[in-house]
Amino acid sequence: MIYDVIIIGSGPAGLAAAIYAQRARLSAVVLEKEYMSGGQVLNTYEVDNYPGLPGTGGFELGMKFREHAEKLGAQFINIEAKHVGLEEDGKIKVVYTTREEYRARTVIFAMGSRYRKLGVPGEKELTGMGVSYCATCDGAFFKGRKVAVVGGGDVAVEDALFLARGCEKVYLIHRRDELRAAAILQEQLKKCENVEFLWSTEVTAVPGEDHVECVKILNKKTGEEKVLDVDGVFIAVGTIPNTGIITNLLHLDENGYIIASEDGKTEIPGIFAAGDIRTKQLRQIVTAAADGANVITSVQAYLNTLS
Amino acid sequence: MIYDVIIIGSGPAGLAAAIYAQRARLSAVVLEKEYMSGGQVLNTYEVDNYPGLPGTGGFELGMKFREHAEKLGAQFINIEAKHVGLEEDGKIKVVYTTREEYRARTVIFAMGSRYRKLGVPGEKELTGMGVSYCATCDGAFFKGRKVAVVGGGDVAVEDALFLARGCEKVYLIHRRDELRAAAILQEQLKKCENVEFLWSTEVTAVPGEDHVECVKILNKKTGEEKVLDVDGVFIAVGTIPNTGIITNLLHLDENGYIIASEDGKTEIPGIFAAGDIRTKQLRQIVTAAADGANVITSVQAYLNTLS
Repeated sequence: MIYDVIIIGSGPAGLAAAIYAQRARLSAVVLEKEYMSGGQVLNTYEVDNYPGLPGTGGFELGMKFREHAEKLGAQFINIEAKHVGLEEDGKIKVVYTTREEYRARTVIFAMGSRYRKLGVPGEKELTGMGVSYCATCDGAFFKGRKVAVVGGGDVAVEDALFLARGCEKVYLIHRRDELRAAAILQEQLKKCENVEFLWSTEVTAVPGEDHVECVKILNKKTGEEKVLDVDGVFIAVGTIPNTGIITNLLHLDENGYIIASEDGKTEIPGIFAAGDIRTKQLRQIVTAAADGANVITSVQAYLNTLS
Repeated sequence: MIYDVIIIGSGPAGLAAAIYAQRARLSAVVLEKEYMSGGQVLNTYEVDNYPGLPGTGGFELGMKFREHAEKLGAQFINIEAKHVGLEEDGKIKVVYTTREEYRARTVIFAMGSRYRKLGVPGEKELTGMGVSYCATCDGAFFKGRKVAVVGGGDVAVEDALFLARGCEKVYLIHRRDELRAAAILQEQLKKCENVEFLWSTEVTAVPGEDHVECVKILNKKTGEEKVLDVDGVFIAVGTIPNTGIITNLLHLDENGYIIASEDGKTEIPGIFAAGDIRTKQLRQIVTAAADGANVITSVQAYLNTLS
């Protein structure tokens, strides 16, 4: 069988695309690597910024998206895509997986991205319990409290500026002795009285039983070890898009993201990108979901051009 | 007082912007013309395409967005903005209303758009009860039934193609004897066996008690009147962005939309557009909500550049 569209990935972008594909009566299938849908959302303790559903558990929100798609008849296959090829002058796209091959007139890449980790003790165990990779997502939970931000780029400084408006105290921990962030952002941050900079410093551990209790740091120049009393640690050392399966198929930007605007079109007709995996300003559940809707409009327009 | 941001309009874009502004701890106010928030959503009988909330009444969904924003402390003023001016080399934006003036460092235009009406008896009364202006929104409710589409542009033909996949029969009613839509779309539509074209034809009435029972049409060339047995009428004769208050401030595209991409930036620094009012491919609740999130990121970046 040749599908109208194969959606690879079942986070918010893939699930929203599945919802819109069903409503457009396209023949569609979602290939998901993990047994559970929802993508990164599943690992979020509480989501408070998906409009209309305040204070929803990440797992619950992932399930709501999945149930919505299933209610409309969306088809899911629990399989890992390995790579994608083109046949018949590119009119047919072939998705090779760990088992079978699947063919379609269009493919949507919606595999998302993952946050770069520090790789220190406590980080993994306390993710969602004080360790966060997204100040926009979780910062509001730390109003009036002390937090640390780890990183030196634009995102780290923006996160620190964001947190400084609501938190009692923000430590910016950076392994170098100067920031990479835009000068204008640095100037703003240096004006914040509740922000303290810790230069040439690395996090060595995030101790805590069932929530973050402090953060252990090491000054690489002096060798001095210290413990900072914080309730939250925001790690902003970059993200890694999950583009492993599309090597050689598409050009990526300098950070590895698929180059595509909000319509999801890539350089190859009939191949689309939606959600965190594409170049965009803001990676949030609602912006991923919007991508899923938009990309199906683009898929329909492309299918309408096929003879 | 000078706000960080004034949001004009309280549909999904304005309310999502209010949610994200509160989370970013910006000083923000939403100016809303109508007493009820939600915008066009309020007039939708059932919304089945906002991911995560299948089968939600339009009124209920509008209230959910509003309550989310209020829960986070968003401030609303029930007042009609009349026009917007610039002070201090554009660093301060002034919103003139029917009563007071409001000042802010940034303004977000989120006034949405409205569908162009036919202006025939029954149209207004049966909106949401079989009369629809959005096949993507409501088409799925008419699976296996007979519908009419009114219009001759790309949107009308795309709507008819979309509906033809699920409906028993689709009438395309157009007042001229040829379509304006792209040739490729026309070719596709002409291949659909369940689509019947009615040329040089106008709708004169949409009769029905509490739902659409049929549609009355007039052939303008022959003068023949007929009644079509349909359950739904999709009116696709264009949309009108609500840009009345921004005359002379911004350049608009040929259809009257504010020219802005997904980041919401307009030609004037510190003035942004979000939701249906801006140039975009797909106008849906979820794409408007995503705009609200995106635009606050742009607002923050702009505020960070102010000395």
